[in-house]
Amino acid sequence: MAEDSKLVAEAKKITIEPAHFSYTERDVILYNLGIGATEKDLQWTYEGDDEFSALPTFGVIPQFDASSSIPLDWLPNFNPAKLLHGEQFLSIKAPIPTSGELVSQARLLEVLDKGKAAAVTSVVETRDQSGNLIFENQSTVFIRGSGGFGGQRTGSDRGAASAVNSVPHRTPDAVVEEKTSSSQAALYRLSGDLNPLHILPEFAAIGGFNKPILHGLCSFGISGKHVFQNFGAYKDIKVRFAGVVYPGETLVTEMWKEGSKVIFTTKVKERDTVVLASAAATLQDDAAKAKL
Amino acid sequence: MAEDSKLVAEAKKITIEPAHFSYTERDVILYNLGIGATEKDLQWTYEGDDEFSALPTFGVIPQFDASSSIPLDWLPNFNPAKLLHGEQFLSIKAPIPTSGELVSQARLLEVLDKGKAAAVTSVVETRDQSGNLIFENQSTVFIRGSGGFGGQRTGSDRGAASAVNSVPHRTPDAVVEEKTSSSQAALYRLSGDLNPLHILPEFAAIGGFNKPILHGLCSFGISGKHVFQNFGAYKDIKVRFAGVVYPGETLVTEMWKEGSKVIFTTKVKERDTVVLASAAATLQDDAAKAKL
Repeated sequence: MAEDSKLVAEAKKITIEPAHFSYTERDVILYNLGIGATEKDLQWTYEGDDEFSALPTFGVIPQFDASSSIPLDWLPNFNPAKLLHGEQFLSIKAPIPTSGELVSQARLLEVLDKGKAAAVTSVVETRDQSGNLIFENQSTVFIRGSGGFGGQRTGSDRGAASAVNSVPHRTPDAVVEEKTSSSQAALYRLSGDLNPLHILPEFAAIGGFNKPILHGLCSFGISGKHVFQNFGAYKDIKVRFAGVVYPGETLVTEMWKEGSKVIFTTKVKERDTVVLASAAATLQDDAAKAKL
Repeated sequence: MAEDSKLVAEAKKITIEPAHFSYTERDVILYNLGIGATEKDLQWTYEGDDEFSALPTFGVIPQFDASSSIPLDWLPNFNPAKLLHGEQFLSIKAPIPTSGELVSQARLLEVLDKGKAAAVTSVVETRDQSGNLIFENQSTVFIRGSGGFGGQRTGSDRGAASAVNSVPHRTPDAVVEEKTSSSQAALYRLSGDLNPLHILPEFAAIGGFNKPILHGLCSFGISGKHVFQNFGAYKDIKVRFAGVVYPGETLVTEMWKEGSKVIFTTKVKERDTVVLASAAATLQDDAAKAKL
């Protein structure tokens, strides 16, 4: 592995405070509704159900503040309006509590110099009050206009977190269509990402969009639900954000089971555009076996 | 006014503890979304909007626990499964804070002996931390099978809270149709009324319903929004719950302006059934003037 530039080496030394996240069953239901769970899915929308649980992609929620708190203003020409969410990897390390207090610790993992842009990958570990690891998240953001600082150009192999997940040359094993609601982003944002990009037309216009866009992590959650519904529990899930979704559009998740992996692609039906690519979930051992 | 029976006089002496309600802008948005506000209504769904506010019927939310905590087990043959929400009156006494801590004090106002049923009216006053009155609610519940205890049969005149609000013999001045979502109750319940009647099919069946029913106070909120959108701010609003709504059905609010009052009726379009009757809002003085 090549050595970091001095700039990056210094940035990795910046102290990042842990972020606390306290939640109740109501927050879990609100998240589940935000990614399209319905009144038919009592295990996700009724706290009294015997199987009541968070959908697995809830794992990106407790770490959100930690992940967004990593300082990036040391990058050349840093402008937060130029930031794009590139990739998300979530590893689920333990059963997800349906309420409680979690602590997330973020750290800078890798900063790549892509010429015009910088690609910053952070890692967040989320633990319960006893210190048990519940989630690990790896998140890559691109900051347009912040490249050219003389850093490494290619990243290290981060396993499932950086896998390319090429789609097999055959028809998908499962396809699920789900129309989002025009209020989907207005609801999803109550789970913590209050960026006005997702609700305020004037702000979306500044970002270069015709109207507010759906949270990438909302599409991630909807497709993650489709994988779960078709193939069962998984221990990790990774996506690359390849395009935007406007609330009200229909997501189509195409899924291919390859051994213990479910590779998937998500498109917007109305515009026949890929929005989640290089995506896959690694099934839990029992789920992988059950579906052999 | 006739004297209370001994039973009722004793019940009025039962001490009722005040109920505390702490909320944030997120809870206000969640309530607004629960009664059908959308991403187009930034003043109701985006906390950064200059006009950000709670819809007026939010006034029934902070008092909900107080209102439901009034003991009724002193009634003959009391059975909570036999309880039906009959009427709701909300008076808005001050601008509604978009976050804060409120305290609600409930008291038993009137208990009528309707022969087969008891009709119990409670009053809840909701105040801010400085003691300013923000809301007054009057709520009447019918308890089937708990009548015949020898109490008064007819109630006192409670003004707007008990008005009959007869519909004028002319076409409505405004009609608004709004389709509820099949997940409307699953979302609305996160504002505090977690009664499984509104989400669990088996529980709804015990209550004699084919499927879970929408919260009466959700329909009340949706129609209250229609009144607000068409006639402006009001200082009080009252409805009688005349029939059930199933999530996914279309509500039709018919409104007639009569002086400073907006009389309204709400029907379910699909079944041509009245669900809110004897209903009216009293406009604020400026709103009443503006619409002359």
